[in-house]
Amino acid sequence: MKKMPTLFFVLCFCSALQAELKPQEPNILPSWNNSSSKQAIIDFVDAVTNESGPDFVPAAERIAVFDNDGTLWSEKPVYFQLFFALERAKALAPQHPEWKKNPLYKPIMAGDLKALSAGGHATLLKLMMLTHANTTVNEFNGIVKEWVKTAKHPETGKAYTDMVYQPMLEVLTYLRANGFKTYIVSGGGIEFMRPWTEQVYGIPPEQVIGSSLKTKFEIQDKKPVVFRLPEINVLNDKSAKPLSISQVIGRLPIMAFGNSDGDLEMLQWTTSGKGKRLGLIVHHTDDKREWAYDRESIVGKLDEAMDEAKQNGWVMIDMKSDWNKIYKTQE
Amino acid sequence: MKKMPTLFFVLCFCSALQAELKPQEPNILPSWNNSSSKQAIIDFVDAVTNESGPDFVPAAERIAVFDNDGTLWSEKPVYFQLFFALERAKALAPQHPEWKKNPLYKPIMAGDLKALSAGGHATLLKLMMLTHANTTVNEFNGIVKEWVKTAKHPETGKAYTDMVYQPMLEVLTYLRANGFKTYIVSGGGIEFMRPWTEQVYGIPPEQVIGSSLKTKFEIQDKKPVVFRLPEINVLNDKSAKPLSISQVIGRLPIMAFGNSDGDLEMLQWTTSGKGKRLGLIVHHTDDKREWAYDRESIVGKLDEAMDEAKQNGWVMIDMKSDWNKIYKTQE
Repeated sequence: MKKMPTLFFVLCFCSALQAELKPQEPNILPSWNNSSSKQAIIDFVDAVTNESGPDFVPAAERIAVFDNDGTLWSEKPVYFQLFFALERAKALAPQHPEWKKNPLYKPIMAGDLKALSAGGHATLLKLMMLTHANTTVNEFNGIVKEWVKTAKHPETGKAYTDMVYQPMLEVLTYLRANGFKTYIVSGGGIEFMRPWTEQVYGIPPEQVIGSSLKTKFEIQDKKPVVFRLPEINVLNDKSAKPLSISQVIGRLPIMAFGNSDGDLEMLQWTTSGKGKRLGLIVHHTDDKREWAYDRESIVGKLDEAMDEAKQNGWVMIDMKSDWNKIYKTQE
Repeated sequence: MKKMPTLFFVLCFCSALQAELKPQEPNILPSWNNSSSKQAIIDFVDAVTNESGPDFVPAAERIAVFDNDGTLWSEKPVYFQLFFALERAKALAPQHPEWKKNPLYKPIMAGDLKALSAGGHATLLKLMMLTHANTTVNEFNGIVKEWVKTAKHPETGKAYTDMVYQPMLEVLTYLRANGFKTYIVSGGGIEFMRPWTEQVYGIPPEQVIGSSLKTKFEIQDKKPVVFRLPEINVLNDKSAKPLSISQVIGRLPIMAFGNSDGDLEMLQWTTSGKGKRLGLIVHHTDDKREWAYDRESIVGKLDEAMDEAKQNGWVMIDMKSDWNKIYKTQE
């Protein structure tokens, strides 16, 4: 008899806690307008978390993968990593007179983004090897951290990490509150992202997959270090994305977000599995608040994947009409 | 006034819960005898989880890495993956008359373990390419699962997954109860381990790092698959271990368990970081209940790492005297 009230209070307390964790309808994804895209995300999460429903997925298998450039933050006029590389190249150039013979030298010093971005990820990676290698992983981490703190986007004047999409931050939080594990699977450099993704996206280093350089283990001043070599290890784009997911996560995701043809194979693979799956594409349609581009763009080209989206029932997220806010600090 | 008793009960309930999660002294690591090894593990965990102490480590950074062969389960007379490969090679041989020209063919068909194990991981990987490739990751997963269910160790007659070390299972559980994330970092095949590590060790696929084959993304019967190629991607031994940890986890572990020279660099790197770190070596000293071997052994050779252990203060776990039980089903 004496124990009953305690139990009652504890039960009330527990169910109050649970109610707090399960997002309430009006507060879900507030930067999303009521649209079919928003509804598709909510319906999917409801279905896979409903234990008594036919589409239930155990929490351990709720893996959601996100491209980064153009999916979680902007990528115009060029990938932000290119701005980082340019700045670093200029800073390092005086110590490297031999760079003058490199065909990338002139566009770098002139800040000729058009010439540099025309080569896509391949050129970016050549520039990475000049500017991202020959340092330990720890040192490089510090360099990126410092850059992120101070650098500003040349067109918006914002810090780069203020150019992450508020609606996508809400998706990340919403999914994690529903037991999902959220991963970045990007063509960008893995060590370029890790120093800030935990703070900005709530995604820890071990859930960041990206392009990488080969590394070497060596003893420097009697201390073992991991040293970055000027040689590509993985160029994590297109069909490399499902391969790196298979290699690192070892599970088929149930949900994938991308924005370009570089995400096509990741979307195909994710949505090919048994059971309920969802593929989504962030479509850049807002030339006022962000940029509008798709089939003809050099950076973030969305052509083949847009056609496949229609055939496969992937959700096309229309940034202009689906999002009432792009960045946190912009109405 | 009305709310005070509720709060009181809730607080009682919560601290009761907390007391349950924090292991009680007599129940910690029951298969470990009271020894300096056991005490070193407990002291380390106490230090890094004590929020007001000088050695506190936030939960997100409590990464512990474990070698598998010889550290979490037995590895004698040869790596268990070799038994799997042998069985699979025999099953596949009738379909591959061309194998008869392969120098590995005779020792395979004769079950000549001595000849096969003499080459260490390199030979194992050659055999892997014959027996582990040319299949999708999904198919291979099913093959391993089936083998694990039925195969028996030729000397003990036990299922291989019954040859995991009970004291190490207790360490895994104890660490996780204290907020650690436990990873396998093995020279064994990543896809050979993933099908059973979650059930046996409580370690999910995304926390398994190992050797791997190159893979290819392709469409089979209109369905995208990840196909395993007969080519080594990573041979995850020696200095490759810190590199794969850096690549996949992106954080320096604070605790590393190994048993052979193949774990030396992982131990060096883990214990080189700032703050409290612990390196431990499982020393095979028990020729009655398991096997006794170190400097002269072909499989699991422990020579250089044993010398470094003394210099660096790594804990040498003496299986014979430190463990009152080796396997769950063996006194």
